[in-house]
Amino acid sequence: MRLSRYFLPVLKETPAEAQIASHRLMLRAGMIKQASAGIYSWLPLGFKVLRKLENIVHEEQQRAGHIPMLMPTLQSAELWKESGRYDAYGPEMLRIRDRHDRDMLYGPTNEEMITDIFRSYVRSYKDLPLTLYHIQWKFRDEVRPRFGVMRGREFFMKDGYNFDLTKEDALHAYNRHLVSYLRTYERMGLQAIPMRADGGPIGGDYTHEFLVLAETGESEVFYDSEITDLTFGDRQIDYDDVAQCEAVLEEFTSRYARTDETHDEAVFAEVPEERRRTARGIEVGQIFYFGTKYSEAMGATVQGPDGKPVEVHMGSHGIGVSRLIGAIIEANHDDKGIIWPEGVTPFHVGIVNLKTGDAEADAACESLYKALEAKGLEPLYDDRDERAGGKFATMDLIGLPWRITVGPRGLKNGVVEVTSRRTGESEEMAPDAAIEKIIGIYAGL
Amino acid sequence: MRLSRYFLPVLKETPAEAQIASHRLMLRAGMIKQASAGIYSWLPLGFKVLRKLENIVHEEQQRAGHIPMLMPTLQSAELWKESGRYDAYGPEMLRIRDRHDRDMLYGPTNEEMITDIFRSYVRSYKDLPLTLYHIQWKFRDEVRPRFGVMRGREFFMKDGYNFDLTKEDALHAYNRHLVSYLRTYERMGLQAIPMRADGGPIGGDYTHEFLVLAETGESEVFYDSEITDLTFGDRQIDYDDVAQCEAVLEEFTSRYARTDETHDEAVFAEVPEERRRTARGIEVGQIFYFGTKYSEAMGATVQGPDGKPVEVHMGSHGIGVSRLIGAIIEANHDDKGIIWPEGVTPFHVGIVNLKTGDAEADAACESLYKALEAKGLEPLYDDRDERAGGKFATMDLIGLPWRITVGPRGLKNGVVEVTSRRTGESEEMAPDAAIEKIIGIYAGL
Repeated sequence: MRLSRYFLPVLKETPAEAQIASHRLMLRAGMIKQASAGIYSWLPLGFKVLRKLENIVHEEQQRAGHIPMLMPTLQSAELWKESGRYDAYGPEMLRIRDRHDRDMLYGPTNEEMITDIFRSYVRSYKDLPLTLYHIQWKFRDEVRPRFGVMRGREFFMKDGYNFDLTKEDALHAYNRHLVSYLRTYERMGLQAIPMRADGGPIGGDYTHEFLVLAETGESEVFYDSEITDLTFGDRQIDYDDVAQCEAVLEEFTSRYARTDETHDEAVFAEVPEERRRTARGIEVGQIFYFGTKYSEAMGATVQGPDGKPVEVHMGSHGIGVSRLIGAIIEANHDDKGIIWPEGVTPFHVGIVNLKTGDAEADAACESLYKALEAKGLEPLYDDRDERAGGKFATMDLIGLPWRITVGPRGLKNGVVEVTSRRTGESEEMAPDAAIEKIIGIYAGL
Repeated sequence: MRLSRYFLPVLKETPAEAQIASHRLMLRAGMIKQASAGIYSWLPLGFKVLRKLENIVHEEQQRAGHIPMLMPTLQSAELWKESGRYDAYGPEMLRIRDRHDRDMLYGPTNEEMITDIFRSYVRSYKDLPLTLYHIQWKFRDEVRPRFGVMRGREFFMKDGYNFDLTKEDALHAYNRHLVSYLRTYERMGLQAIPMRADGGPIGGDYTHEFLVLAETGESEVFYDSEITDLTFGDRQIDYDDVAQCEAVLEEFTSRYARTDETHDEAVFAEVPEERRRTARGIEVGQIFYFGTKYSEAMGATVQGPDGKPVEVHMGSHGIGVSRLIGAIIEANHDDKGIIWPEGVTPFHVGIVNLKTGDAEADAACESLYKALEAKGLEPLYDDRDERAGGKFATMDLIGLPWRITVGPRGLKNGVVEVTSRRTGESEEMAPDAAIEKIIGIYAGL
């Protein structure tokens, strides 16, 4: 993309309403614009990141054998009356009446609707196991929306639902989700720690939240420092392998890691003192096993192997996709702006032309731009007639992890400069070498 | 995908509520399930097609230089009061009140919101031309939703908006959209004819609707038969080239083609009698140039070259993405089911194992399945232990354009059978040749 043809309305001023770094930087980098309280338009740069995260979630869910579909944003109140949650949900549920005076609502989650789909079609245990998921806009009418997309009202979320014949099978689905989530977050450049959580309004005995450590997190967290040494890495997982998935769960959840909701001072005290950590965390996902809570309330049964009806065991599993962008920025920024992890950056590399209008500099930039595009990468080329300082500030603010700087002086010596946004380190090299370097960085991502 | 692990709830019975083929077939093929009147869940097969169409629209819009973003589904009533459409829109607008008693609405379209974004950031004519678009869920509270996704209430739509300094520039944007739409529909296997249309509630002197001919279409259409001989083909278009885009518009709109809303019997009579056609059509898109209607009402001005403020010239351009699926099926089906065009089929090829459990047949199917996947294709492998007749009926119903049938008898002779869903013709060939044939069909799509 050539910046002269893009829509990147960066702001010089820091917006007064933004209290935390991610909110401030998303506004300043031209990623979002508030439409109403807690509701945002995703400007081109923001949408590009959102779409990348969405695609990563799709890929990892499908790798785990989960099946994508899409439920609508608006739901009929009927289903929620059946489960008993219509009255229980409170004022965070956005209730709507249509032109025929039917009670509707903007879905905050989809347990009821997916259970209704399941019971409409599935009759036999032979059709299990089944895990369906979707990524869809949801609404929670927060009384005081704040922190930008971190605590908005209209938000984009992946929610998946498993249907299993037995508790054991359902716990395998639970473990599979935990594994797939670990992979998902790592691909996004995040360390998200699974912590024992509280069931809340969805219910469930087994539930883990995934928390990203960040000073601005809304939860206080307590953990054994050994846990932050764990990485998922590129291990190959057979998601059908019960023992293998269980071992990952075991590895990532056996150490103490809890939020203030479930924190137990006595148990925490058993962690050696030098490994006890207290910090703040941002919740970016949660998994639940809640057994037959919804299948009982809504009559979701299958015929079991013995011919008798069995209420299916269910769980639900969410990733806050729009909120993740805030979490990624909270964990990856400095005074100058955002620092995107390579896995989610909106553009792979920025090209800064130090002297737009200079024939040689223009030609070198064009040639870099086209070569990178030909390799399937997306460069953002700042071809505007602006001062170099302004161009650097914009690139730093929007946080592309790599920048190639092209100017007449370097070109005389046959070199351009490649700069890492994260370390600030620059290296001079021939344009061809710069292309190879960038290709190498993104190979396999 | 292995059918034994997929969720494809096909129905044997024809649902009573479905009056037209696409609605009937989408329900029977397990693509959608009604959630409430005019609101659908997209089951896995339906979602897969929806996502393909979404991606095609994204690709073609970006090829034309239009910039993707995403506006929220809920809007504040304030903007609509500013444009004067809040009261004018009538009961099809779903009006919502949030917990703080603020008036909101579920966006039926986004002229106001995009104009607000534009005026918030853009100050100079130098930032023009600019075309932004998004693909988002919208809501129209139809009094009598019907025909499945063809006339639903919650629907998925691409809407794009151009901002230009002059009428001439805006008309180039108009032409660019027309060209990109022609390409888009053809990639989906559709012939959509641009017809002179009526401005309606969005307004505008220049507007064309795109109509797909189908017996069940809601509009009566009148056209010169020469128009159906036109194809866009694989011509390379430079979207910056004003004359080239205008020539395409000229070519595709100079012959008589109108809906009942704009039909003029006297002008139609000038078409030679043997070329005059009357038919029915489904509207799948519309483009508008409406000048300064919204920029005037909402103060969207830029500083012109002479330093004076200029109200920008705008247009809006929509494609009904969810409705397109209905239109594609209306134009591509037979008694047995859907017949997907190759460009939008949910799976590229079906593999039918005539004798699941037979070691040789199982191995041959596995090997075909893996070879096709390795080539980046998505086969749907019916590995269930079912009768061959049932497997064929399912494949015909869901409409994959190609099927490979594998059975012990053929394998003895070293062959499998490749069948075209459209023609019904079958050909025997070695498994390797079958793979090559399928790869060849999808090369370049």
